[in-house]
Amino acid sequence: MGNHGDVTSRLPSDLPAELRRIVGDRHVLEDAEVLSGFTHDWTGRVVGDTAAVVRPGSAEEVAAVLAACAQHGHAVVPQGGNTGLVAGSVAFDGAITLSTARLTAVHEVDTLSATVRAEAGAPLAAVQAAAHASGSTFGVDLAARGTATVGGMVATNAGGLHVIRHGPMREQLMGVRAARSNGDLIGALRPLAKDNTGYHWPSILCGSEGTLAVVTDVLLRLVPSAEDVAVALFAFATAHEAITAAALVRRAFADVNAIELVTDAGVALVCASLDVPPPFATPAPYLLLVEGAGTPGVVERLADVAASLEGVLDSAVAVDPEPRAALWRYREAHTESIARLGPVHKLDVTLPLSGLASFIEDVRAVVTDLRPDAAVWLFGHAGDGNVHVNVTGVAPDDEDVDRVVLELVAQRDGSISAEHGIGRAKLAYLRLNRTAAEIDAMRAVKRALDPAGILNPGVLLPAG
Amino acid sequence: MGNHGDVTSRLPSDLPAELRRIVGDRHVLEDAEVLSGFTHDWTGRVVGDTAAVVRPGSAEEVAAVLAACAQHGHAVVPQGGNTGLVAGSVAFDGAITLSTARLTAVHEVDTLSATVRAEAGAPLAAVQAAAHASGSTFGVDLAARGTATVGGMVATNAGGLHVIRHGPMREQLMGVRAARSNGDLIGALRPLAKDNTGYHWPSILCGSEGTLAVVTDVLLRLVPSAEDVAVALFAFATAHEAITAAALVRRAFADVNAIELVTDAGVALVCASLDVPPPFATPAPYLLLVEGAGTPGVVERLADVAASLEGVLDSAVAVDPEPRAALWRYREAHTESIARLGPVHKLDVTLPLSGLASFIEDVRAVVTDLRPDAAVWLFGHAGDGNVHVNVTGVAPDDEDVDRVVLELVAQRDGSISAEHGIGRAKLAYLRLNRTAAEIDAMRAVKRALDPAGILNPGVLLPAG
Repeated sequence: MGNHGDVTSRLPSDLPAELRRIVGDRHVLEDAEVLSGFTHDWTGRVVGDTAAVVRPGSAEEVAAVLAACAQHGHAVVPQGGNTGLVAGSVAFDGAITLSTARLTAVHEVDTLSATVRAEAGAPLAAVQAAAHASGSTFGVDLAARGTATVGGMVATNAGGLHVIRHGPMREQLMGVRAARSNGDLIGALRPLAKDNTGYHWPSILCGSEGTLAVVTDVLLRLVPSAEDVAVALFAFATAHEAITAAALVRRAFADVNAIELVTDAGVALVCASLDVPPPFATPAPYLLLVEGAGTPGVVERLADVAASLEGVLDSAVAVDPEPRAALWRYREAHTESIARLGPVHKLDVTLPLSGLASFIEDVRAVVTDLRPDAAVWLFGHAGDGNVHVNVTGVAPDDEDVDRVVLELVAQRDGSISAEHGIGRAKLAYLRLNRTAAEIDAMRAVKRALDPAGILNPGVLLPAG
Repeated sequence: MGNHGDVTSRLPSDLPAELRRIVGDRHVLEDAEVLSGFTHDWTGRVVGDTAAVVRPGSAEEVAAVLAACAQHGHAVVPQGGNTGLVAGSVAFDGAITLSTARLTAVHEVDTLSATVRAEAGAPLAAVQAAAHASGSTFGVDLAARGTATVGGMVATNAGGLHVIRHGPMREQLMGVRAARSNGDLIGALRPLAKDNTGYHWPSILCGSEGTLAVVTDVLLRLVPSAEDVAVALFAFATAHEAITAAALVRRAFADVNAIELVTDAGVALVCASLDVPPPFATPAPYLLLVEGAGTPGVVERLADVAASLEGVLDSAVAVDPEPRAALWRYREAHTESIARLGPVHKLDVTLPLSGLASFIEDVRAVVTDLRPDAAVWLFGHAGDGNVHVNVTGVAPDDEDVDRVVLELVAQRDGSISAEHGIGRAKLAYLRLNRTAAEIDAMRAVKRALDPAGILNPGVLLPAG
């Protein structure tokens, strides 16, 4: 047991034995090499430090692990798929990593209430598969579907590709069970669309980034599967025209699943990177991709909406899966194409739609004024004002780049974190969006539900 | 100023002057006759007791009133339209009533983001009118639309007629501003569909029944207006068949706005009460009313779904407004028709759809076993499992009737409050749905956000 040496020196002397008693010897991991698999975040740039990884096998074991750690005042960081981008699920300073890797059960779909129950560590793809097998669909989809877990998605209120259609994770979460750091389990998993019996744990815990309680089980609502799907691509000369069109599509097209925005530079980069032809003979400054899905007739209804748009320079429509994927590629391949350019600053922000066009124009200038060699790539979900500001050609640790972008966002009444939350990476910027009074109130809620202060310290809330 | 005598004797000596300084002399009401207009709840059965009514004219004034009351440890009960059914908005024991009657502004609709900002005291109808004028619709509708305020609807997470289509109030609430009892204002009113920057006040405050903070302003999302509407009525022999059909409609009919259930006895009562003919020549035990609304073609799409239903004994479809209203009348006139029978016990509960049919059968037996003279009227929103259990023919204060119904609901994994919340009326039953650990956790949240303990004491949470 020589490999315990390191750990026991950093954990309170009784704690490792207690944890082993709760979850079994095999599920307290202490080997340095094994631990390193849990301390690197998705971006690869953040490297944390954990004294041990604990893998509970049930909600009750999660609760017991937390109670034991609370008794010793030892910090715990819950970790699901670890696909976040703000360093919210990696342990630091020897905190214990509570992995949900063994909590992967996805129960049978309740077709009458259109819900499915899953444990926190179940990957999104497993929930999607269960929904699909029952003839339904889960309303949230992410590129990281194979790895991202439903527990982590609740903790970060994940949004993804279809937020404008079905809402973010918070709107899918009909019930939740979670362990508090005092060892209590709270919440329920009843398939009740209407339930107003006091404070609503699903709402409170969704987006709380593991700082209030650890989600152990969820009850998720499912949505009807679409019978027909159609994708259209529209070219515009200005951001203003593209965004005005996006708002009109959202209002007039009940079947809309996604409205995505890309620019000429991004599309040219994707075409070069994947060696594919451009969508239109004449490159247009802004392209809007619209996906509709629903009952038969979607194609006709999308065509009706398209006919009412103003300023369209060019358009293309795809109905079959392969041509649809070809249109989506211009949007989806942005991430990988930009990554090939070197280290990327990724700032995922939301603007009010009324200020989105001017933000898109101004953010380039703000960044290049600061760093003339920088390249600014803009793409995102135009339907809900969520823009991915990617910056290349600057040093990976150039914090001024992040700062000027996020300050511009806040000046324009935007959100500095559309998805992923605050984590550690955006902690220094929280005050751009939240007042001192709000941070005080958040701290009070944190102390109320986690009085021991052991749940994900250093994440979401700045030190008092 | 002789009419102040009563009040000042019951309020801390400095408090009335402080309140007058904050809101102006005219907005601290102390006349006993005037006060009595604020102490009777909607049912008329609950009569509270308030020392004064204070009507702030701005969010800042709300915050200052709360801070003054907190300093004196004097309880405050926020009151909007006072249309709740659980005695949650009436002051007791001389608490101050904080009326939102002066906070009625509804701002211009932001058509690009499809949102509207309103003050807490704005009636639902005013928000609906603003939405309508902009070509949109507000997603929540209630019978009490002329009186119910958006602040109260947030406090109770109101649901209403279209929950299965657009969700309850919580899903409409994009932003909120609220006053804490320490005098802080928290929250923001930014039209951001995605914003994950810490704990989410809209989610936390929605459904908290005025116990955590007082909502002063809201930012509400709007939904596209339906172009076409169709209503169908289907007759079934059994509750099981009706509810199976409801689930199928919900799955297969994307345009569904409402799925309502009524019974033969209720329909016969409505027909006798309003002197209207029955919907079908042969009375059927259960009727399902389905409303579809959306893009043109709704009638055809509803007909397609209708053709796939099993066990339909009879059916009727209406497209024009008048025939639609005639079908709705069989459902909507239940409340007034039952009220004519005398005092009514109204229990608004939700069951999982899988247990709804057996609950409907069993709840009659449970009530009539206890009170052989009782009549049990069942109607409600079959699409989301929300049943209104109305009992007549028993004494108004017969608490055993309420108890046996709510116990049956809890045994069947249902919610004892679908809408309206817990208030004072259901406080004794909260433990049927919530564990001791959950009530502890709720108390901790309450203490965190309202450490003075002055906000709506005695509502939602049992005394510690």
